[in-house]
Amino acid sequence: MSRTIGIALLGLGNVGGGVIKLLGDNATAIEQRLGARLEVRAVVVRDPDKAKRVVEVDRSLLTTDLAQTVARDDVDIVCELMGGTTLAKEAVLAALAAGKHVVTANKALLAEHGGEVFDAAERAGVDLYYEAAVCGGVPIIRVLREGLASDRVEALHGIVNGTSNYILTTMAETRRPFADILREAQELGYAEADPTLDVGGGDASHKLAILVNLCFGTIVDVTAIPKDGIDVVEPIDLAYAEKFGYVIKPLVIARDHGHAIEARVHPALIPSTWLLADVGGAKNAVYVHSYALGPSLYYGAGAGMLPTAMAVVSDMIEIGRNVFARAAGARLVVRPRPAAARAMVPLADIRTRYYLRFGVADRPGVLGQLMTILGAHGVSIAQVVQDGAPGTADPAGGPVWVVVLTHEAREGSVRAALAEIDGLAVMRTETRVIRIAG
Amino acid sequence: MSRTIGIALLGLGNVGGGVIKLLGDNATAIEQRLGARLEVRAVVVRDPDKAKRVVEVDRSLLTTDLAQTVARDDVDIVCELMGGTTLAKEAVLAALAAGKHVVTANKALLAEHGGEVFDAAERAGVDLYYEAAVCGGVPIIRVLREGLASDRVEALHGIVNGTSNYILTTMAETRRPFADILREAQELGYAEADPTLDVGGGDASHKLAILVNLCFGTIVDVTAIPKDGIDVVEPIDLAYAEKFGYVIKPLVIARDHGHAIEARVHPALIPSTWLLADVGGAKNAVYVHSYALGPSLYYGAGAGMLPTAMAVVSDMIEIGRNVFARAAGARLVVRPRPAAARAMVPLADIRTRYYLRFGVADRPGVLGQLMTILGAHGVSIAQVVQDGAPGTADPAGGPVWVVVLTHEAREGSVRAALAEIDGLAVMRTETRVIRIAG
Repeated sequence: MSRTIGIALLGLGNVGGGVIKLLGDNATAIEQRLGARLEVRAVVVRDPDKAKRVVEVDRSLLTTDLAQTVARDDVDIVCELMGGTTLAKEAVLAALAAGKHVVTANKALLAEHGGEVFDAAERAGVDLYYEAAVCGGVPIIRVLREGLASDRVEALHGIVNGTSNYILTTMAETRRPFADILREAQELGYAEADPTLDVGGGDASHKLAILVNLCFGTIVDVTAIPKDGIDVVEPIDLAYAEKFGYVIKPLVIARDHGHAIEARVHPALIPSTWLLADVGGAKNAVYVHSYALGPSLYYGAGAGMLPTAMAVVSDMIEIGRNVFARAAGARLVVRPRPAAARAMVPLADIRTRYYLRFGVADRPGVLGQLMTILGAHGVSIAQVVQDGAPGTADPAGGPVWVVVLTHEAREGSVRAALAEIDGLAVMRTETRVIRIAG
Repeated sequence: MSRTIGIALLGLGNVGGGVIKLLGDNATAIEQRLGARLEVRAVVVRDPDKAKRVVEVDRSLLTTDLAQTVARDDVDIVCELMGGTTLAKEAVLAALAAGKHVVTANKALLAEHGGEVFDAAERAGVDLYYEAAVCGGVPIIRVLREGLASDRVEALHGIVNGTSNYILTTMAETRRPFADILREAQELGYAEADPTLDVGGGDASHKLAILVNLCFGTIVDVTAIPKDGIDVVEPIDLAYAEKFGYVIKPLVIARDHGHAIEARVHPALIPSTWLLADVGGAKNAVYVHSYALGPSLYYGAGAGMLPTAMAVVSDMIEIGRNVFARAAGARLVVRPRPAAARAMVPLADIRTRYYLRFGVADRPGVLGQLMTILGAHGVSIAQVVQDGAPGTADPAGGPVWVVVLTHEAREGSVRAALAEIDGLAVMRTETRVIRIAG
């Protein structure tokens, strides 16, 4: 029990602070399970004199010298919690080159430069773990890499961005507009000052790229993943969705088509009977459909100081176990080798169902026009709701809403139909398009 | 890619057949991930001449010679799928003694003889994996052992017996009696000819003992886990539960009280808003509450040929990875070492809420009698429903139902009150007691 593993932390924000706190709070349990102590030997920060920190830290551990720290003799594991893809990438590559094992929570780094980083780990013969990069504390990386190692994932639906889920859940409960809820979330510290990455789908697409790599053994270009932000959803859409038996959730979707991979990020209507429909607040969940296991679901806190730190420290324990078994690096099962590069299904070629909300002039015959154009493009209709008979609508002349749920259709056909429809003189607003999953 | 890992299967029932099928169906994916083939070199069966098998198997692989097979030079992993605790235990111990890694799906063996079996694996310096022993294909063992390695589990609620969940789900949907649904489930092959182990809670208590070991690092006496079968639940109880906003699920519950461990197996009312409430059919799920991560949930197929085989073959892949890293055995993280033996909380001392259904004579004043006795024992009432005013009940003189939901109370106090109540002349049936979780 006198063995120790030396840790260097790069970054002391929310997650770094959580790691320090958890290593203290759970020290006994961790030492019992690993048969060793995890000891933080250095913490790289931008400003060692910063007065306010998430946790109290021994000042003597703080340093600004990144290059020296990642190569220190008494450091076994470098834990990168800085974020970003420039300095973080340099630091991780330097640590790997110095023969250090690396734990990172940096989804952007892995999604954008995973190939290079994994190659470097392999060359160095060291471990690289990244459980915290997707879904915070939910161990979805381990589940896919080890729990389902013998299975083939066919499709995956996930709620992987907590901020987006919080906003849509609150919108569904209160029917208040997106901008109000976002502002409140920012005031409460649930959303970043610049929320683009969260609500625009960028963060989710990074996570999806990592999941696709694990599920399908192929590296995808993260910039090629089609994404819509949740700002397309208005309270009225949640009301219509409910009327049809659906809820709207911020989803990542991936599917194996054999010849190609389908991957996309967007809010979607899902049946209110799905387990994912009950994943509320800022929680995350991934619903996996695999050949042998069938459906399975993994749910929990996708962000937050302690949940994310939990994933980081569990990775450190795993590396510690490998180190003591003299198997670190040798067990580098972290990277699924691409069997062959696989193409992405072009967005125009995906097939799914659609929710379409048309804002039309309050005039007879409009519905017929819409249906005719959709039909001409091969888009078949499952359900239509038109609110109010003609003449009963907003006396101020606001639009009448026509809401259509389609059968499965090709995205390209739907977009062509909508381009034609949005050119009609009777259209009062841009048509709202939300895909339906399931 | 020319490396192989030699497998011996002990048993060729449903799961054994599933392993053979999965090794064939997913051969390419498995070989890519492991960098080696998993090759079945022998299958021990009782009767090699049996005409009908779950899958087609090369006859030359079949043997009845257990002792010789587990020690064969060309076998690296012995996979025990026989079930039972006598011959299976001998076989597993013989395999370990011969230096073979072992994969087992045998919950009874591990729950009743885990200490001995883990000791033998440790002495032999080999791997022992058992993901399939709890919740079939849901990788809950890996999640607790590795995903949550840095965390401390505070409480766990699980649906771990698919047959019981199927029966209660069907009863809730159809309001038909237990015996009818059980008979139908047996005819459909969902329930065993002798259903005692499933519906009586024995199977669930085996799984709970394994979960407790992983969560709390202590070995519990499986026979000391209090258990009630689901046959105490009648359709009328599901109707009352629904009225109060609950559903009834077959649960295993464990909680860390610091000085002692609480563990129990019984059907329980849970709020219909819980994710576990939506776990229907024969599906399994475990809801874990841990210090750092907070709540998390793991859901999927807890039984069935391919889901269970999936867990077994994923364990083989894990061992294969260890073998190639020369780390097998050395990474024996499978067994949480008991920090100290920890006592079980006696059933009489547990505190929870209770659903009590009293069948009383249709006579004024009875409700007052019941309330007075419960109050005298310190059992405080949250809600009461009495069906029909006195005099409006079954003209044939059947009981009037008084249903009580209590606040949190001590089990011993509730039982003492019920003993007194069941002695009253006005009681028409034995009181139905179902605990409430949450």
